[in-house]
Amino acid sequence: MKPIHVGLLGLGTVGGGTLTVLTRNRAEIARRAGREILVTKAAVRNLDKARALAPELPLTQNPFEVVDDPDIDIVVELIGGLEPARALVLQAIERGKHVVTANKHLLAKHGNEIFAAAQDKGVMVAFEAAVGGGIPIIKAIREGLTANRIEWIAGIINGTTNYILTEMRDKGASFEDVLKEAQRLGYAEADPTFDVEGIDAAHKLTILSAIAFGIPMQFERAYIEGITRLTGLDVKYAEQLGYRIKLLGITKRTPKGIELRVHPTLIPARRLIANVDGAMNAILVKGDAVGPTLYYGAGAGAEPTASAVVADLVDVTRLSTADPNNRVPHLAFQPDRLAADPILPMGEVETAYYLRMRALDRPGVLADITRLLADADISIDAMMQKEPEEGEEAVDIIILTHAALEKNVDRAIAGIEGLAAISGAVARIRLETLGR
Amino acid sequence: MKPIHVGLLGLGTVGGGTLTVLTRNRAEIARRAGREILVTKAAVRNLDKARALAPELPLTQNPFEVVDDPDIDIVVELIGGLEPARALVLQAIERGKHVVTANKHLLAKHGNEIFAAAQDKGVMVAFEAAVGGGIPIIKAIREGLTANRIEWIAGIINGTTNYILTEMRDKGASFEDVLKEAQRLGYAEADPTFDVEGIDAAHKLTILSAIAFGIPMQFERAYIEGITRLTGLDVKYAEQLGYRIKLLGITKRTPKGIELRVHPTLIPARRLIANVDGAMNAILVKGDAVGPTLYYGAGAGAEPTASAVVADLVDVTRLSTADPNNRVPHLAFQPDRLAADPILPMGEVETAYYLRMRALDRPGVLADITRLLADADISIDAMMQKEPEEGEEAVDIIILTHAALEKNVDRAIAGIEGLAAISGAVARIRLETLGR
Repeated sequence: MKPIHVGLLGLGTVGGGTLTVLTRNRAEIARRAGREILVTKAAVRNLDKARALAPELPLTQNPFEVVDDPDIDIVVELIGGLEPARALVLQAIERGKHVVTANKHLLAKHGNEIFAAAQDKGVMVAFEAAVGGGIPIIKAIREGLTANRIEWIAGIINGTTNYILTEMRDKGASFEDVLKEAQRLGYAEADPTFDVEGIDAAHKLTILSAIAFGIPMQFERAYIEGITRLTGLDVKYAEQLGYRIKLLGITKRTPKGIELRVHPTLIPARRLIANVDGAMNAILVKGDAVGPTLYYGAGAGAEPTASAVVADLVDVTRLSTADPNNRVPHLAFQPDRLAADPILPMGEVETAYYLRMRALDRPGVLADITRLLADADISIDAMMQKEPEEGEEAVDIIILTHAALEKNVDRAIAGIEGLAAISGAVARIRLETLGR
Repeated sequence: MKPIHVGLLGLGTVGGGTLTVLTRNRAEIARRAGREILVTKAAVRNLDKARALAPELPLTQNPFEVVDDPDIDIVVELIGGLEPARALVLQAIERGKHVVTANKHLLAKHGNEIFAAAQDKGVMVAFEAAVGGGIPIIKAIREGLTANRIEWIAGIINGTTNYILTEMRDKGASFEDVLKEAQRLGYAEADPTFDVEGIDAAHKLTILSAIAFGIPMQFERAYIEGITRLTGLDVKYAEQLGYRIKLLGITKRTPKGIELRVHPTLIPARRLIANVDGAMNAILVKGDAVGPTLYYGAGAGAEPTASAVVADLVDVTRLSTADPNNRVPHLAFQPDRLAADPILPMGEVETAYYLRMRALDRPGVLADITRLLADADISIDAMMQKEPEEGEEAVDIIILTHAALEKNVDRAIAGIEGLAAISGAVARIRLETLGR
């Protein structure tokens, strides 16, 4: 069969990795796919740099030239960001080309528009590389677990923050110090906002939620809390209580609606996912038939991400001759059968909590605190009061609650912070047992 | 689109689970697949028992009646064993029907014949449920990692033995005691041979090896060692040295050939896969581009296995109208491009070792042992000598070696066992760091 022709938009980390993998494993990939997958053109910003990387590849600085090239079957979008990525992807679809993209930001924001356009034109938009790097998580959920009603997903889907949290725990260091070190080592970007504020994780979670439940992308409804306010103290106390703190993306189907939230989370240290360290990613998926399943691997990096891009290229190559109605639907469910479940506002979410407060060691303080919790319908699972440090008058009180409504917890915290014996804010970290 | 008609062979644990899942999640599955998947007939051994389970389903005691039914599109083989499963699958293929099977024994032994027949007739034989229960591991390797040259796979692919090993460690109990308890609880069968001798794991490993490297099924060349000779003592010493013992199926591509081996293995306790406990399964796959990836979930049970069977049904439904040449090849690689790499005999395999010997506490014993190891070209990574127990004259010596050739280790062990100061046999357990 004649080779498939691929046009690359972007020849940076992932684009370069894709070219490397396609070249190095050319024979192995053709043995699998049944035909060769050839990159025939690439659009780059810097021609000289790209020339050094790919001396024989036709290059252009105009990405629309790749999109418009009638000789190209599949366009691989690896430039990132919203524009011109959106315009390029839509134009490629308009030209009847299949698209492979690693752009979670683009899909979380404009996925509905892009998939509708692809559906109209009968082309595929594949996006395995957008979540979990090289982990075939999109395929696992869309195709591997089709028997299941998915109940919930909880994932470590941002490597930078997982690296930072691992270092904070292992070295007892502060967020600021670890972030600086991570930037020096290249694990965090110069502007780390998207990572440390949880935005990147929320982009990915939006995609996972859509394919798990068959709902449109609703990034703007996600609750997003990063790790910037996390203290070494809470990491230490969590450890003492038998928990680890991870930045989790959680999406769950409840009778009231769908939860879609990214925040630091205490999870029992004995859970497999609690032991996913450094920059690695892992996604825990709970299906009603299969039970819990977990997928682990490198969530970023040139070749791991390229692994997902190339897997998509092979899939698209295989399915390009299939009846469009029989292909795997973009959001896992048939486009005319998407669900309209609402996304729950955070106040309506029910979960357990870790609360830490600093209190003067006086009679009646605990009674006041526990009464405020009881009044807000919050029951206590465990409590720990630390001895005051040398020369300190105040002590740390840590409370683990059973599942409670977030809005009730907000109310209780406001009450506790208003107590005269309490100094400073109450630290609140959500807690998930991930048991069932 | 009109519904797909499925005929079930067997309505036991997995067959019953498949019917349950297809019924309970009927709407969700149709939303995904774009058409309904209906079981229209089942062959069973006991009509009365089946009637209670599925009062409205047409039943027969003759499985060939299902295979020959022209109204049936896909035959699901869940009766297990070699015959009549083989004859039924071949006849279904001959009739132009697609087949879904969970039968690892059948595929490991007769997969080459079955896939060749399916290829000839242009039908699919899907087998996600044959390895790792509900974990979509076949899909991950065949489709999710197509970019990669797979380097090795190491898997906990038998739940019964993992349950036994977990209990031996947690309770300090002997193999025999835990096995009895596992039989009482239904985790182990009355005749546990296939599980505890590693045969079931070797069937599954044979399948994983074939799809990872694009080689024919070669079960008869697998090295198979079960857990029946494992002592609580070794489990304890391994723990003290920072390792866990797991029954691993390991297949690895080396310049000399392909390793295909099932045996108890020491692995560092900090590895994620070392923390997979109880009856759960996990498969660690190392690709050259993606690095290590891990897949975890329930390896057996009615609904987890049904999850894989139904995922196959949806896949086969989707691809049934596709050009047969564009479907995912049975062994992941195009049938005319399979590799002829030989399977390495165990003597040629290189790995690290845990050796335990009982020695009289005399001068010169260690010198004799270390000389024998050196003569066999084996270097020592760590050594531990336990104090003699009260009233005992002999002490346990544990040696961890660096990677060495198995045949050299055989020679050294024979020499050590010949020393006058050594009593009994040398216990030998292979050790893998699973690091790269």
